[in-house]
Amino acid sequence: MSRFIVIEGLEGAGKSTVQRHVVSWLEARGHKVMTTREPGGTPLAEKMRALVKEVHDEPLTMEAELLLMYAARVQLVKNRIQPALRDGVWVVGDRHDLSSRAYQGGGRGIDAGLISQIKQAVLGDFKPDLTLYLDIDPAQGLTRARRRGELDRIELENLDFFERTRARYLELAKADPNCELIDAGGNEQQVKARVLACLERRLCTAG
Amino acid sequence: MSRFIVIEGLEGAGKSTVQRHVVSWLEARGHKVMTTREPGGTPLAEKMRALVKEVHDEPLTMEAELLLMYAARVQLVKNRIQPALRDGVWVVGDRHDLSSRAYQGGGRGIDAGLISQIKQAVLGDFKPDLTLYLDIDPAQGLTRARRRGELDRIELENLDFFERTRARYLELAKADPNCELIDAGGNEQQVKARVLACLERRLCTAG
Repeated sequence: MSRFIVIEGLEGAGKSTVQRHVVSWLEARGHKVMTTREPGGTPLAEKMRALVKEVHDEPLTMEAELLLMYAARVQLVKNRIQPALRDGVWVVGDRHDLSSRAYQGGGRGIDAGLISQIKQAVLGDFKPDLTLYLDIDPAQGLTRARRRGELDRIELENLDFFERTRARYLELAKADPNCELIDAGGNEQQVKARVLACLERRLCTAG
Repeated sequence: MSRFIVIEGLEGAGKSTVQRHVVSWLEARGHKVMTTREPGGTPLAEKMRALVKEVHDEPLTMEAELLLMYAARVQLVKNRIQPALRDGVWVVGDRHDLSSRAYQGGGRGIDAGLISQIKQAVLGDFKPDLTLYLDIDPAQGLTRARRRGELDRIELENLDFFERTRARYLELAKADPNCELIDAGGNEQQVKARVLACLERRLCTAG
C-alpha cells in the first residue's frame, strides 16, 4: 500500500535535499514515487503559489494568504495526490498542512481552531501517513536560504516571525504521533543518516 | 454615515444596470460613491477572479473555488471597502457574500454551515447594510447573458445549477431583514422604478 510522506521545516532546513533522499530510499525498495511541493504542484495551484510568494504593491491580507494556501492544497490533493495514492504510487511532499498551521497559525497568529475548521471543511480527514519535521535554528536556516538567492515575500519576514513559526512547528510535531522531529543541524550526511534511520524504523516493520 | 449596498442576482438579472441607477440616486443626494465587483476589485483579487472565471484544462475543485472567492473578498473588503466606508464613501457592490452562499452553497451543494464558518473566520461580522436581490427566471437571465457574448466557466453550467442557485438566493433573501427581493422581470424602466422605490423606503427615513 502506498503512503503519503511529507517533509516539513523552515526555510533552509534542507527539505528538498531530504526529499531526494527519501525518494531514492523508496525507489531502491521498488516503489513508484511522485514528488510534490506546496503551495503548488498543479497548473492552477502554481498560479496560486505565485500570488502568495510574489512581492506585490497591494498587501496580501493574512486571511487571503491562508485561503490561497488551502485552495492550492485542495487542487493538489484532489487532482494529483489522491489519484496517485489510489494507483499505488508513493507521494513525497515538500510541505503540506503543517506549514499552514506553523506559518499562518504560529507566524502570523491566525487562530489555530479556525485553521483546523478550514482544513476539515475542504479536506476532511485526509492527512499524511508520515511527516518528517526538520528542525533548525531560524537564523541558521535563513542564512542557508539567503545563499540560494533572492528571497520571496514570506522569506522576507523578520526573525521573530520564524521563531514563532518554529515554536508552533515543535509544538505540533510533538503532539502528532505520525510526525517525526529530526534535528536538521550538522552536515548533509548527518541529516541523511537521521532521516534514513527514521524511515527504517517507521516503514520497515510493515514490510 | 456611509453604507455598503450590494446588488445580487443571477447572470442576466441586470445587476450592472441597477448598480448604475443606485450610484446616480446616491450621487444626486450628495454622497460620494465607490463601486466594486466581486470576485475582483483589487489587483490581487482580479487575479483570483481570473482563476475562478477562466476555463482551464485542470478542473477547479468546488472547494478551491469557494476559498478563492473568499480570498478575493477579504482583499476587497480590507483593502478597499472598509477604508472607503471609514472615509464616509458609500460603496455599491456588484455581488458579495450572498453570491457564494447561493452559487457555491445552492448551485454546487457545498454545506451552508461550512460556508458560514469560512465567512465568519475571515470576515467576522462584516456584512452589507442593504442587499438588493434581483430575482429572475434562470432561463430568461441566461438568454440575456448569452446576448452579451462569450460565457465564462461558471456561466457554462447547466440550467439545473442556476435553478438551485436561484432557489437558495430566494431562501436567503427572505430570511435576511437587510435584503430586498426585487422582481427583475420586465423592462429596464420597470426594474429601475422598483429599485428606486426600495431605496426611498430603506434609506430616506434615516434622512
